Amino acid sequence: MADRRVTVLAGGVGGARFLQGLIEVVDPSAVTIVGNVGDDLEPYGLHVSPDLDTVLYTLTGRIDAEKGWGVRGDTPRALEQARALGAEAWFWLGDLDLGLHMARTEMLRAGLPLSAATARLAAAMGLRATLLPSTDDRLRTMITTPAGEVDFQTYYVRRQHADAVLGIRFDGAEAARPAPGVLEAIAAADVVVIAPSNPFISIDPILAVPGIRAAVEARRDDVVAVSPIVAGKALRGPAAAMLQTLGHETSAVGVAGLYRSLAGALLIDREDAAAAGRVEALGLRPRVTGTIMADADAKRALAVAALAAAGAGS
Amino acid sequence: MADRRVTVLAGGVGGARFLQGLIEVVDPSAVTIVGNVGDDLEPYGLHVSPDLDTVLYTLTGRIDAEKGWGVRGDTPRALEQARALGAEAWFWLGDLDLGLHMARTEMLRAGLPLSAATARLAAAMGLRATLLPSTDDRLRTMITTPAGEVDFQTYYVRRQHADAVLGIRFDGAEAARPAPGVLEAIAAADVVVIAPSNPFISIDPILAVPGIRAAVEARRDDVVAVSPIVAGKALRGPAAAMLQTLGHETSAVGVAGLYRSLAGALLIDREDAAAAGRVEALGLRPRVTGTIMADADAKRALAVAALAAAGAGS
Repeated sequence: MADRRVTVLAGGVGGARFLQGLIEVVDPSAVTIVGNVGDDLEPYGLHVSPDLDTVLYTLTGRIDAEKGWGVRGDTPRALEQARALGAEAWFWLGDLDLGLHMARTEMLRAGLPLSAATARLAAAMGLRATLLPSTDDRLRTMITTPAGEVDFQTYYVRRQHADAVLGIRFDGAEAARPAPGVLEAIAAADVVVIAPSNPFISIDPILAVPGIRAAVEARRDDVVAVSPIVAGKALRGPAAAMLQTLGHETSAVGVAGLYRSLAGALLIDREDAAAAGRVEALGLRPRVTGTIMADADAKRALAVAALAAAGAGS
Repeated sequence: MADRRVTVLAGGVGGARFLQGLIEVVDPSAVTIVGNVGDDLEPYGLHVSPDLDTVLYTLTGRIDAEKGWGVRGDTPRALEQARALGAEAWFWLGDLDLGLHMARTEMLRAGLPLSAATARLAAAMGLRATLLPSTDDRLRTMITTPAGEVDFQTYYVRRQHADAVLGIRFDGAEAARPAPGVLEAIAAADVVVIAPSNPFISIDPILAVPGIRAAVEARRDDVVAVSPIVAGKALRGPAAAMLQTLGHETSAVGVAGLYRSLAGALLIDREDAAAAGRVEALGLRPRVTGTIMADADAKRALAVAALAAAGAGS
């Protein structure tokens, strides 16, 4: 198993936790992560890539594990000062986190594409896996709520995902191109994993980059998805509510419906074992396992199960 | 004296220290400061206005008095993280200082001119005097050294003003317009003071904005300059070296030569009392006083002497 090349489509917290287990059961240098940039933002002109950062912080041991994001032990001195001087400060940024955004912003302003900047940051932080943004082009997730369309972070952080989600649009997607290496990593992988991230706001914005969805579909037999829904609920965030308002069943079966053209297998939690037949009826191989990543053992076991479910595992 | 309206052209540290004394001897709300923006920079895309910030921090009690700039008790957590991740970090920025730059940058990105952003920051910080940038337009001091032309902060901070200064240019000056209120503050003042700042890199970039030099010259009888050179030396920074390489006498007389069309009076230090005759021969009223601002008393006394030297004081 240590030799298998694995490419993972991943969002933020859930994806990063899955990856923590994965890089303990395969050689990290054989892992390529395609990350979501739809929730990127530019507070104060600094380029923040929250999902890429969560992966970086998690896999290099810097993450604030309790929150799931941000740097452990970080302080908000700069942010609180900005707030005191009249700036908006609803997007929490610690001082150490700011340092990363400053470095990234300097690289982008010097003309580096996001993928190259990400590679430099990852190398400086000691990441052994390869982390690629889905695209170097500007792509932003926009959320339609009853009060109108807002950018992703306004919906998610500022308004604490309290609004009903009536639609989702990926601004810039049509003109975006996959970042260098993304299509190749999907094509060359032994296993492609769709991490237990929110399908609508973590995975869809990756797939919205022209070429990526087709690349994943071309590998369907070797693609394994992990349901982020357990017993009708998301472990974190608004995935369950989105399934409902966007017209899907709020269950692992609803997830199977979303991924049926993409994934040959779907990992569902033991609590959802009774849904295996309906998942299979949608054309995905159901694999029942523990999907709740409560500790390091559980994370490793989930990674092992995902790899086992792919291709030859059928 | 409390009723007199005073407008001060000021650079960074020396100007800010002079202003500390001034606002103790006149009503601060009657003081307008025209600040230098030639040394502004945009590290990491954040808009930093070092001279305006030094005035703000000094006059609102936040200054790191030992360094003369920056915020007392500030920490470089973000900067050190950026450095660790490969970013340039030769321009020191503390976390609290970053908060100010973040707030300013947000305002500028929202479309506010620098003067309006400065007014908001000043109000939030409790500044009672009026602080105006010389211009809302982009103006940058460029320094010609034996190795070629570099931007001001590369010369001053990165290379620690070790290069001989062969020429100075104010990029953008030709198209710059005075910020709202600048010409009016010069015209309406009872006294205009040219603070003991570096004539070449603090005062000249202000005067380089079309209209400002003429406005000061029109008030020449009421303009008092304070020599930043004492006994042939600058108390701080490269003013003396610049006088020399740019072809001027390295003395208060050299300063008098620079300011003869602008100022009716020049305050020179007691150590330079013997030069009074030569200052007078250049057409400026010499006023011999203590110009070294060693403590609060000395700052107040210098402000009183400057006001006394103006107009009717002749």
